[in-house]
Amino acid sequence: MSKGELTRQRIIAEAAPIFNQRGYAGCSMQDILDATGLEKGGVYRHFASKEELAAEAFRYALANAVKIRTENLEEIQGALPKLHYVVLRFTDGPSVMPGGCPLMNTAVDADDGNPVLRRLARDGIKDWKTRLCRIVKEGIEHGEIRAEIEPRRIVNSIIAMLEGALMISRIEGNRRALQDARESLDILIRDIALDGRQSDPQALRHA
Amino acid sequence: MSKGELTRQRIIAEAAPIFNQRGYAGCSMQDILDATGLEKGGVYRHFASKEELAAEAFRYALANAVKIRTENLEEIQGALPKLHYVVLRFTDGPSVMPGGCPLMNTAVDADDGNPVLRRLARDGIKDWKTRLCRIVKEGIEHGEIRAEIEPRRIVNSIIAMLEGALMISRIEGNRRALQDARESLDILIRDIALDGRQSDPQALRHA
Repeated sequence: MSKGELTRQRIIAEAAPIFNQRGYAGCSMQDILDATGLEKGGVYRHFASKEELAAEAFRYALANAVKIRTENLEEIQGALPKLHYVVLRFTDGPSVMPGGCPLMNTAVDADDGNPVLRRLARDGIKDWKTRLCRIVKEGIEHGEIRAEIEPRRIVNSIIAMLEGALMISRIEGNRRALQDARESLDILIRDIALDGRQSDPQALRHA
Repeated sequence: MSKGELTRQRIIAEAAPIFNQRGYAGCSMQDILDATGLEKGGVYRHFASKEELAAEAFRYALANAVKIRTENLEEIQGALPKLHYVVLRFTDGPSVMPGGCPLMNTAVDADDGNPVLRRLARDGIKDWKTRLCRIVKEGIEHGEIRAEIEPRRIVNSIIAMLEGALMISRIEGNRRALQDARESLDILIRDIALDGRQSDPQALRHA
């Protein structure tokens, strides 16, 4: 990696938590200069505008989030344990980045705001849903999950519950809402299981 | 109401959707002057700072949200139908204000930001939870809801799922996530019912 590319990557990595905490409008290029210790020209050499930097910072933050939240997922066998694991990584796993979930922050920030960020947030939600829908469909094919289940319904419910619980958890300053979400999602995931096929999220938690 | 008080109320009502759409950092006092058509002195006569106006605008937006989302709730008999109704008002009822839910917007905006708004958002969540917990506790006392149910768990789950689904719905530009949330919350609410006591959310929907 060239020195220029290294600097570019460092700017993105340092800008990402600032945008994630303050939002697009709440973060100025001056904030980025202060954080990186670079001169104006040093940042504008790599990014034509604040919008371009914010977009790269979001891509970086989102890639981080996906990496942390899906770590070791491929080692889990079966669709139901996989879904429980996805929930558990979100509610009990390490925090992605200061400021909370970049996907929720950018979605809420940009739904009436910056169109580039709005499109990136929409794509991020879409990719997350696609990954989870694939797990549900495999579970249906393998007879773990009831055939009449609409994958989109359970996937939307998992993402909505997790993101909403994180919002409550962050504003309350404790993890209770996340724990409650995990318990309710365990019920919803058990509900889609084919009768008799009970997955045991407790076993996963203590693995 | 004096003319001065009328002007103050008009400024709050016109500022509320602007703050709700753009966030605290994304909304300047100039935006408020443009929207109200008032001179700087005309706004600052009523509000010492942008922070004070934003706080009043949030209180106004939140009061509106509560009013719309709880309309006719007292006419619904029984804890389970009440919970289904609360969900239905949120997923299928009228929109509160341009920009989406003021509570989620302000919670996400202020969790690392303005402390006054953060406190108001936390109080808003707390009040909502208190209102719903009261319904669940009455349901337990009246033998509609299982005694071992932790009211906080189901209440956190309802709020988290609704707010998260609204976030997805707004970024996707359609109502599917809200409909999916309603269906999953119907399952969770049926799960807390005392055996044999099936509430029928379908009947409520077509009432």
